[in-house]
Amino acid sequence: MNKESTRDRILQKGGDLVHAKGFNNTGIQEILDAAGVPKGSFYFYFKNKQDFGLQLVDHRVDMFGELVRSHLRDESLSPLARFRRLFNWFKQFYRDHGYSLGCPIGNLAQEMSDLCDTFRARLERAMTGLTTAFKTILDLAVEQGQLAPDTDTEDLAAFITMAWEGALLSMKLEKGPGPLDRFERMIFDKLLADRGAERQ
Amino acid sequence: MNKESTRDRILQKGGDLVHAKGFNNTGIQEILDAAGVPKGSFYFYFKNKQDFGLQLVDHRVDMFGELVRSHLRDESLSPLARFRRLFNWFKQFYRDHGYSLGCPIGNLAQEMSDLCDTFRARLERAMTGLTTAFKTILDLAVEQGQLAPDTDTEDLAAFITMAWEGALLSMKLEKGPGPLDRFERMIFDKLLADRGAERQ
Repeated sequence: MNKESTRDRILQKGGDLVHAKGFNNTGIQEILDAAGVPKGSFYFYFKNKQDFGLQLVDHRVDMFGELVRSHLRDESLSPLARFRRLFNWFKQFYRDHGYSLGCPIGNLAQEMSDLCDTFRARLERAMTGLTTAFKTILDLAVEQGQLAPDTDTEDLAAFITMAWEGALLSMKLEKGPGPLDRFERMIFDKLLADRGAERQ
Repeated sequence: MNKESTRDRILQKGGDLVHAKGFNNTGIQEILDAAGVPKGSFYFYFKNKQDFGLQLVDHRVDMFGELVRSHLRDESLSPLARFRRLFNWFKQFYRDHGYSLGCPIGNLAQEMSDLCDTFRARLERAMTGLTTAFKTILDLAVEQGQLAPDTDTEDLAAFITMAWEGALLSMKLEKGPGPLDRFERMIFDKLLADRGAERQ
């Protein structure tokens, strides 16, 4: 393995463990075992476990951020139809994972926000990035007449982010799709009074 | 201390630690130190750490459940005004705690749902209890004409629970009141089209 792929492998495999078990509940030795690398490799790329955690936030943001943006720039669909389809993609993702895991950023935010301010600030930036992507698509929906011109898209985007985090928490707790379906009904059929479907 | 107060003290002090630091991140020795009791006392009341965790869920449900119910049965206010005031009480609580901690049940749900099914089932029951209390007040709002007769109060109550959990997560991340204010605007001013204020 070259250097880049070793670092990536540690972040990928270690990140999957942290996603499933939590950050404090995952030991460095488990990460090494999962990635199949010796301890020296870990410390070549990461100063310590916290540094690994911070780089992991960026790694997950890159993974999911590109996925979110690629869904939202598909011009064959109306803005709100793209937005809805993004959440349907996630619904399928979580169905394939037994409605477990939850949001990698949300989990870390829950666990780490009160324990380490450096971690908290990095996670806040990540979550703001998600809200900004949502605001962009809502702004486009306003431009194209799918939402009223006076819509406060920033407030709405931030609410959608937090409702989505809450939906993922409930999904993980109930181990079923109910909360994700409920999120879709309330956000798209009520709050956004979605006319996107008609315009696909 | 008599037996009951020793058990309560362990649950209270240990529960505060778990609320702040997470379940897996809190050791039994820390709980003993915080409660000021010897190890033997802990094992007199709790079989092991998991048993402590399960009894802690019930303990927090009793604490917060009574608080929620007492707000919701105040007949001097309309149903929706009571409901809104409950969340304002929580807003003050979190302001007094530096917008940290989050929801004791939500935190454990995030952390434990995938790790232990016994824990998950207990937490799911706790969260369902909260949704049921919310549904009761929404049903009363329908009865008193504050909400439309065809309102799906069960779906709405479950959505409010999950949006609230998401708001608490965002609050903890942002360390400010913004997400709680946003929750109130979106739920009460938009989704419930609250006419409660006029009727107070």
